[in-house]
Amino acid sequence: MKRISLLGATGSIGRQTLAVVREHPDQFAITAFAFGENVEAALPLIREFKPILVSVKNKSVAERIKNELSGRTKIVYGREGMIEAAVHPDSDVLINAVLGSIGLEPTLAAIEAGKTIGLANKETLVTAGHLVMERARQSGAEILPVDSEHSAIFQSLQGQDRSAVSRLILTASGGSFRDRRREELAGVTIADALRHPNWSMGAKITVDSATLMNKGLEVIEAHWLFGMSYDKIDTVIHKESIVHSLVEYTDHSLIAQLGLPSMLVPIQYALTYPKRLELKQTKRLNLEEIGTLHFQKVDKRRFPCLSLAYEAGRTGGSMPTVLNAANEAAVEAFLSGRIAFLDIEPLVEAALEHHQRIKKPDLRAIEETDRLARYFVETEIEKKSRGG
Amino acid sequence: MKRISLLGATGSIGRQTLAVVREHPDQFAITAFAFGENVEAALPLIREFKPILVSVKNKSVAERIKNELSGRTKIVYGREGMIEAAVHPDSDVLINAVLGSIGLEPTLAAIEAGKTIGLANKETLVTAGHLVMERARQSGAEILPVDSEHSAIFQSLQGQDRSAVSRLILTASGGSFRDRRREELAGVTIADALRHPNWSMGAKITVDSATLMNKGLEVIEAHWLFGMSYDKIDTVIHKESIVHSLVEYTDHSLIAQLGLPSMLVPIQYALTYPKRLELKQTKRLNLEEIGTLHFQKVDKRRFPCLSLAYEAGRTGGSMPTVLNAANEAAVEAFLSGRIAFLDIEPLVEAALEHHQRIKKPDLRAIEETDRLARYFVETEIEKKSRGG
Repeated sequence: MKRISLLGATGSIGRQTLAVVREHPDQFAITAFAFGENVEAALPLIREFKPILVSVKNKSVAERIKNELSGRTKIVYGREGMIEAAVHPDSDVLINAVLGSIGLEPTLAAIEAGKTIGLANKETLVTAGHLVMERARQSGAEILPVDSEHSAIFQSLQGQDRSAVSRLILTASGGSFRDRRREELAGVTIADALRHPNWSMGAKITVDSATLMNKGLEVIEAHWLFGMSYDKIDTVIHKESIVHSLVEYTDHSLIAQLGLPSMLVPIQYALTYPKRLELKQTKRLNLEEIGTLHFQKVDKRRFPCLSLAYEAGRTGGSMPTVLNAANEAAVEAFLSGRIAFLDIEPLVEAALEHHQRIKKPDLRAIEETDRLARYFVETEIEKKSRGG
Repeated sequence: MKRISLLGATGSIGRQTLAVVREHPDQFAITAFAFGENVEAALPLIREFKPILVSVKNKSVAERIKNELSGRTKIVYGREGMIEAAVHPDSDVLINAVLGSIGLEPTLAAIEAGKTIGLANKETLVTAGHLVMERARQSGAEILPVDSEHSAIFQSLQGQDRSAVSRLILTASGGSFRDRRREELAGVTIADALRHPNWSMGAKITVDSATLMNKGLEVIEAHWLFGMSYDKIDTVIHKESIVHSLVEYTDHSLIAQLGLPSMLVPIQYALTYPKRLELKQTKRLNLEEIGTLHFQKVDKRRFPCLSLAYEAGRTGGSMPTVLNAANEAAVEAFLSGRIAFLDIEPLVEAALEHHQRIKKPDLRAIEETDRLARYFVETEIEKKSRGG
């Protein structure tokens, strides 16, 4: 029986983690359950999975659910609450599926507590890869990827000669606007951007998928997760999202992981690794039915965010934090209708240009950098809206 | 330094094995070298690789090369000679790349001697899988696949949960006549049949590739090599021969091995396993350049040999020996211009129908079955030519 702390339980990955747990009640249990403020979604799940501890966004949400739950569930909140959930002594694994940079601290705490970590929170590695990986080495905590590309790479590295890896190849669907030229993106709506061809995901990540920033963040994650230099990480457009990523070895052999697009597979693999379990909720891939798999070069001029990410990754230090925070702020502004889709990229680029790199930022410097990058983006947006 | 006994040194796989050895003179050496009668091809290779022992087809070939080589090379011949080469005390690995059922005895001898065996000889497992695998279990000898599909499966099983394998999927190029309908095959020539779209191989295997008998034999090999029931072995037409085969797991995740078509990769992997080495002679796969990978259902009516192979495999006992021997005899007859391409399949089918299955044939019964199946095919061909 694996006992799980789940952060971000009501989000897309969180709910799918619970679906995996639901399929295997003899294998998995939820010890701690953290969500933000979506009480309506959370209550039935808490009743179903009966965690010992529940952590929520703030005191008022805590008060609201206290009345709804039996006295046996401990309810905590805020930053400390989420950390308490992450390091709960009765849990073996942390699945960190919160969105954004608030996912970082609980990860670090769980690493120090020696937990196995299933990481779905991109920002943890993007903004603090140097801290996270160093502390994981020290504590011996295992970090297992939960998203589909890194899980594919992780699966394709098992039992293989790690010293003979020559390249990681991340596949990218190309997102909602793959087949449109840049000029055609000027007036796209939020609804357009959220119509992803293959994956059903949260709004932020769907937009990131359309700008390829998502792939850029994944390149930085892969750099840290697998200890690969940026020169050895490539991306390729693969519109069917069937080949989830590949590892090339020095003998020119490639190992790849394939399957129909489903987050359930990488989530479950992180929970069962190195074993596997049946997964009845997912469908078998039938290559004969799919018929054709397409691969295509990424046009980096069409998708400038990918180049920005490589550049931020290579420069290192606090640059990836700026990349991520500026992007979060810009996407948020787009999703709230304040800027156009094509404004996202120049805002991120401007934030990177504006920033003075800190070489080895500690947690505090990362937080400060994050805050300043968001502030910069907000200020730019305001300037522009006043100007217009 | 791995010391190698190489059987079938002047054939296609043999020469490619030597090419791998040539690239890594610090890693590999040839201890024993067996070939048939192609003295012209063999002599320069013997001079280059300086084996301790050379085995040839018969006494007269032995006499011919004795005069050409220095006194330090031991020269042996015939069945005993090949076995002596296979079990040479100074060799660690046997690469068995002889064609046809004469490859069986040396494999068994090497298994008993506890050698690691790189198996490129299909007939060994097809005709005597039950004997070979049982003896390998007893002696602890490792059997590593050398052909591209089984190597792909073997690579895709590394580090994975063997108890969670749900299916092996062998890819098939479809061979020289993939895009022709059955009716269009009536008058095809030997030259047509030998024009394989992706792989440069020997004549026999190229014809087997066009009838899909090659895939059928591989299904039987996979059954023995990986201990999988026939219900869990599938085939799919994949005309680019880039995805060399796949393994499906119970969580609907698939692991696959990919690369440009080259036998050098599986040959070298069998020699370096579980490590990998650079392989400069091969080219890097560039998926963006390939662009498209196609997958298509195998039409078993179009390719009856595949169904015959599944049936022979499922029935078991001496049936796969009949399948293989009848096919060898029929393909030989086609390649010598005595029968038409479309005569191959009915001859194999007739031989299978004619045969009375022996449930657990020993080596002698396998040899006898092999002989009788060939005799049956020859007789049928004669009958027909007399009749016509």
